Amino acid sequence: MVLPFASSPSPSSPHTPAAARCGQPHGIRQATPGHDAPLPHKQIGIGIIGCGRIGRLHAHNISRHVSKARLVGLADPFIEKGDMEWVRELGSPLTYTDYRDLLAHPDVDAVFICSPTTTHAEYLIEAATLGKHVFCEKPIDLRIERTEEALTVAREAGIVLQVGFNRRFDPSFANVRERCKAGEIGQIDIIKITSRDPEPPPIMYIEQSGGIFVDMSIHDIDMCRYIAGSEVTAVQAAGSVRADAAIGEAGDVDTAVLMLFFENGAMAVIDNSRQACYGYDQRIEVFGRLGMLRAENDTPTRVESFTGAGWQADKPHWYFPQRFERAFVREVEAFVDSVERRAAPMVGGEDGLAALLIAQAANQALRLQRRVVIDEIMEQKAA
Amino acid sequence: MVLPFASSPSPSSPHTPAAARCGQPHGIRQATPGHDAPLPHKQIGIGIIGCGRIGRLHAHNISRHVSKARLVGLADPFIEKGDMEWVRELGSPLTYTDYRDLLAHPDVDAVFICSPTTTHAEYLIEAATLGKHVFCEKPIDLRIERTEEALTVAREAGIVLQVGFNRRFDPSFANVRERCKAGEIGQIDIIKITSRDPEPPPIMYIEQSGGIFVDMSIHDIDMCRYIAGSEVTAVQAAGSVRADAAIGEAGDVDTAVLMLFFENGAMAVIDNSRQACYGYDQRIEVFGRLGMLRAENDTPTRVESFTGAGWQADKPHWYFPQRFERAFVREVEAFVDSVERRAAPMVGGEDGLAALLIAQAANQALRLQRRVVIDEIMEQKAA
Amino acid sequence: MVLPFASSPSPSSPHTPAAARCGQPHGIRQATPGHDAPLPHKQIGIGIIGCGRIGRLHAHNISRHVSKARLVGLADPFIEKGDMEWVRELGSPLTYTDYRDLLAHPDVDAVFICSPTTTHAEYLIEAATLGKHVFCEKPIDLRIERTEEALTVAREAGIVLQVGFNRRFDPSFANVRERCKAGEIGQIDIIKITSRDPEPPPIMYIEQSGGIFVDMSIHDIDMCRYIAGSEVTAVQAAGSVRADAAIGEAGDVDTAVLMLFFENGAMAVIDNSRQACYGYDQRIEVFGRLGMLRAENDTPTRVESFTGAGWQADKPHWYFPQRFERAFVREVEAFVDSVERRAAPMVGGEDGLAALLIAQAANQALRLQRRVVIDEIMEQKAA
Amino acid sequence: MVLPFASSPSPSSPHTPAAARCGQPHGIRQATPGHDAPLPHKQIGIGIIGCGRIGRLHAHNISRHVSKARLVGLADPFIEKGDMEWVRELGSPLTYTDYRDLLAHPDVDAVFICSPTTTHAEYLIEAATLGKHVFCEKPIDLRIERTEEALTVAREAGIVLQVGFNRRFDPSFANVRERCKAGEIGQIDIIKITSRDPEPPPIMYIEQSGGIFVDMSIHDIDMCRYIAGSEVTAVQAAGSVRADAAIGEAGDVDTAVLMLFFENGAMAVIDNSRQACYGYDQRIEVFGRLGMLRAENDTPTRVESFTGAGWQADKPHWYFPQRFERAFVREVEAFVDSVERRAAPMVGGEDGLAALLIAQAANQALRLQRRVVIDEIMEQKAA
Repeated sequence: MVLPFASSPSPSSPHTPAAARCGQPHGIRQATPGHDAPLPHKQIGIGIIGCGRIGRLHAHNISRHVSKARLVGLADPFIEKGDMEWVRELGSPLTYTDYRDLLAHPDVDAVFICSPTTTHAEYLIEAATLGKHVFCEKPIDLRIERTEEALTVAREAGIVLQVGFNRRFDPSFANVRERCKAGEIGQIDIIKITSRDPEPPPIMYIEQSGGIFVDMSIHDIDMCRYIAGSEVTAVQAAGSVRADAAIGEAGDVDTAVLMLFFENGAMAVIDNSRQACYGYDQRIEVFGRLGMLRAENDTPTRVESFTGAGWQADKPHWYFPQRFERAFVREVEAFVDSVERRAAPMVGGEDGLAALLIAQAANQALRLQRRVVIDEIMEQKAA
Repeated sequence: MVLPFASSPSPSSPHTPAAARCGQPHGIRQATPGHDAPLPHKQIGIGIIGCGRIGRLHAHNISRHVSKARLVGLADPFIEKGDMEWVRELGSPLTYTDYRDLLAHPDVDAVFICSPTTTHAEYLIEAATLGKHVFCEKPIDLRIERTEEALTVAREAGIVLQVGFNRRFDPSFANVRERCKAGEIGQIDIIKITSRDPEPPPIMYIEQSGGIFVDMSIHDIDMCRYIAGSEVTAVQAAGSVRADAAIGEAGDVDTAVLMLFFENGAMAVIDNSRQACYGYDQRIEVFGRLGMLRAENDTPTRVESFTGAGWQADKPHWYFPQRFERAFVREVEAFVDSVERRAAPMVGGEDGLAALLIAQAANQALRLQRRVVIDEIMEQKAA
Repeated sequence: MVLPFASSPSPSSPHTPAAARCGQPHGIRQATPGHDAPLPHKQIGIGIIGCGRIGRLHAHNISRHVSKARLVGLADPFIEKGDMEWVRELGSPLTYTDYRDLLAHPDVDAVFICSPTTTHAEYLIEAATLGKHVFCEKPIDLRIERTEEALTVAREAGIVLQVGFNRRFDPSFANVRERCKAGEIGQIDIIKITSRDPEPPPIMYIEQSGGIFVDMSIHDIDMCRYIAGSEVTAVQAAGSVRADAAIGEAGDVDTAVLMLFFENGAMAVIDNSRQACYGYDQRIEVFGRLGMLRAENDTPTRVESFTGAGWQADKPHWYFPQRFERAFVREVEAFVDSVERRAAPMVGGEDGLAALLIAQAANQALRLQRRVVIDEIMEQKAA
Repeated sequence: MVLPFASSPSPSSPHTPAAARCGQPHGIRQATPGHDAPLPHKQIGIGIIGCGRIGRLHAHNISRHVSKARLVGLADPFIEKGDMEWVRELGSPLTYTDYRDLLAHPDVDAVFICSPTTTHAEYLIEAATLGKHVFCEKPIDLRIERTEEALTVAREAGIVLQVGFNRRFDPSFANVRERCKAGEIGQIDIIKITSRDPEPPPIMYIEQSGGIFVDMSIHDIDMCRYIAGSEVTAVQAAGSVRADAAIGEAGDVDTAVLMLFFENGAMAVIDNSRQACYGYDQRIEVFGRLGMLRAENDTPTRVESFTGAGWQADKPHWYFPQRFERAFVREVEAFVDSVERRAAPMVGGEDGLAALLIAQAANQALRLQRRVVIDEIMEQKAA
């Protein structure tokens, strides 16, 4: 079907409203200039620090899918040693081995910190000091004090600081949150999150990760806070080594159950595994007085087969680049939008800190085999 | 979770293979230069003729999502009379009121013909004569002879000609076709396609559309041919006016059932409606000796609710820009790939002609209330 | 959990209403004497003629699951030659080799005719003449005239005559019908029924069956009439031999598509196969102006698995005794209820005749490859 | 379709095997005498003590659906004061106000104890002493010592003692357990059970129930033990009052989360609510090294609607008589089978005791807000 030319005279046809949709084939609301935001005089210039998997993913999204942003440059100590084809595919942005050179570039309005966790706080502080806005992958730091220090610098510098809790931008999870907030299921009683990776990361990675709660559950902790609309007061935790003995030898668990208790009386249960053989299992269920909402996994296709072997359909998407493909684009759009409007980000540094505190309380609850109150963690720090 | 820097020395980690995936966050296979295709010396330059809904959609995809293509210019008689913001968002390609100027531009390697159907054949012939490759929205023409004429010119010019049967590129439909072709369900006995629009087009559009079979069912006819892997020999048809009396007054039906009979003995049943109040209903079911495959509708989210009112989930996507979002990108990628390799397109002019013949046979079957053999149509033309 | 004794003094507890439900563990509404029907002075006495698969199934249901009926006796020429254990399990009802002896028994108020089709009309007429109510398996006869003759006798005898269209009593199908009747989806435009058997019957059976339309589609024809709430005016048909060449040699097809056109403008499409390797596939979809209703297959369990091979669930129930287990009980209950109240059955002899006419029109439509109007069949008979 | 007479000469037809199925229209395997069990010389005579909701449900099932059992009599102190119609519908078994009279009847081989919990142990001991087999609703007693005492008497009397953990007999749950046992998902890591009632019981009932863990979670505890195939070593618990403040005033919680830790390293999480507005929510999910199995809720029909309001389907069954309808029949069949063969029941007194111990540990864990080891409970008892 081909509808009439651009401005041919049938503006009041039933198809006109739909025509407006075609500008958004990704189903993602984009603030159209002239529509609900002032026309940007220029795109937001962005630099990426750290060009591993997640850095490249952001670079791709910024250069391809976020019209209000421009990828200015990339910084990574090893960037010149590898194949540069992927850089050319991004339209050949500038490349640096020293992130300070990137930070210094006048076109860089904001940076994405995608380097190893141990460097996050340092780079964040340097960027903030230079007045650059920051999108920081989680966690900001494994230490609470250092995280607070970075937040203080960012606050004083007046920059926009967004933390990489990408799942808040998943269409299904965001939908659950919105409907909970709108009261569709009334008072929230129990939140349940299942979050399982398809395969464990390298042991070297595990060793520096801060443990399963800080590395993996932290996303789920943030999501529970987001959905509950309330603060966590206490946690209980359990964990064991089921998938890979080497993870146990590295001092971590690979299977965990975490309970969160909220100020408003809601409870949350998170179950994690480092390895689900059927793929990336990311589900949420929220039970309230007026009903239950749940987000099931997304799948590559909607094809079903019926054979002698039964009724079959796709596994969930294999891992986060597939499952959270849209969420990754949407979180960048939200960040760029906040930068443009100098507005508070949808997920800020305080959210990162809150989730870190809870994750560390979980570490303690696992060790002590009892309920740990968040205030204890605060006091320990003070002591 | 943040993995190590770009080329930090842990290349053999379990995460390395996944790292390769992050270059393709859209889940769409992109032939990466240096990987499975030679590096393009230049991008394919593309011009769009006709800037209504579908023309703009292609323009957006070419400029944003198809790295091997470049949007050179747009042609539309009314282009300068409208708001030009959408053109600026595309990176300000050249604009022309006369498509001939676009065709003449040396950077234009290929054109997308998205103008009203009555102009398709003419523009196609002109473009082919100039050696420009053509992506033509369906149908090429409502008349079989004119379609054949255009195909002859294209063939003699040696251009790549692809027809806009976008559904072949839908991940779910493509998956069904591949699995049928691979023999997963054995001999195919019955193909069933349900294809319903959320709302009818304007009556003015209906009047020039060639009727529901040529305008709407033609997509489903092509899909049946594609899945059956065989040619249609005869058709039966039924239709009625159920949704909008004005459609009947315009000489068309809005509800139809079409049966196709294939050389290999398979049968297909297509049911169409111009208006399904719950959205764009696009489903396929293929029944074979060894099982059944079906593609259900896709939905905006995977959220389910359980309340006093029952279990509830999303409606299907509202219309084609949402449902076939990926298919539209993939069909452009496939076209660009064919152009680059000077290879036969995945869906060529002959496929457009075959579907048109069947749709016209359906018109006749509806009028005569009997089975019509495709050869009859060929003979009528010859006579 | 154990609630208080029978009449312990907490009658107004929230659980009291639910307590009433426990008398109906089958989820089937049973008219409780003293509640909405007069107390039966005696149970309805029932005899079964023909003790093959379906006769035994009815015998089991009558003796076990229908409290208002009593199984008096069984008649089958071969009954004494087989293992009698199944008779003992039914509580040892009387057994006869001659059905006339059963009919003559004074306790027999009603008979179930489950013998081969060729005997149905004869037994029905004899039973009616003796004033016995009749539940007759479909079809009453393969010939229209003979069917009409039997109906006339039944009508003049004033008996209740119910035909074995068991699917009207399936909870899912009945639910679709009720909701359509209540107007939930507005004007009905397209009814689609998929009806596939897991395996073909013996060729000997095929040869005497009257063909796929009369033997198999007749159930679906009845369901379409029931849902449409309108009479069929014309049919189109297509068929082929895909599953078993021997069926073709027996003069029948094993794969068929049937279109029905209704007085109220609705259309129906039925697709049948004698063999679906994944089990008994019985689905209905009804598309109307205000929405769509569909009944998916039922499955033995609701268990799903997620493994490396994907998502998996049960196949549909294997065949009719499983899938229509409840429907078979409910049709007997409805019959007994009609007999008790001397009321018109929910599916009467005229419904059997109407479906037979349509099935025979389908035979003709298949042979002539054109639309056949039901009046033609009536006229042929008259001529 | 009507197949040939009972013993007509086509025994080797493809339909013959299916014919055998018609004897089991409930899809439940019944040991047919002469087939896989010796012919019973007589049916097992059964008496019911306590004729509240659950007693009547068992009475109905025994009299209607379990061919190897016969309902001899009913005992309930209030039985003669109520409407006796339901007794007549059961075929008018004997009725007693004193259970001792029922126990004394020589035809009573076994009794079902369905009276209030406080009487279970006493009746069980009396019945066992008289050599009557016992089916006892859960729990046997709220006190561990008293439970052990009753078990000892039963063991010494050599009777069959089955406890009413009906969910083990649910087709879906049983299927999950069988597949876990067969190793389909490998080592079990996490079991998750959601178990929510549609509405809370009367407060008077709550007060005597022993609390949510003993009254409600005990079913889920048993199911976790059954699936894990291992013993619980420790528990953690959390609970709150969310649905009804009166439940809190009665000293109980209405919303709870319970964690179980098993000897084999598996963990289980149970979440309970006394009130889910959408009905009886009973789901299980088992995550293992090789995959995940889950049992979703069952629904009255399989009908789906698609309207402007979205995609909709049935709520779960409203409550246990509907959801566990088949399970209730199957548990009686299993009990009768054990009695007939003098074999250990599928769920014995020790299972009841084990679940009670765990539930009491949960009470303690909730009070102490820490992990409680089962051995502690044993030691407390000993002390």
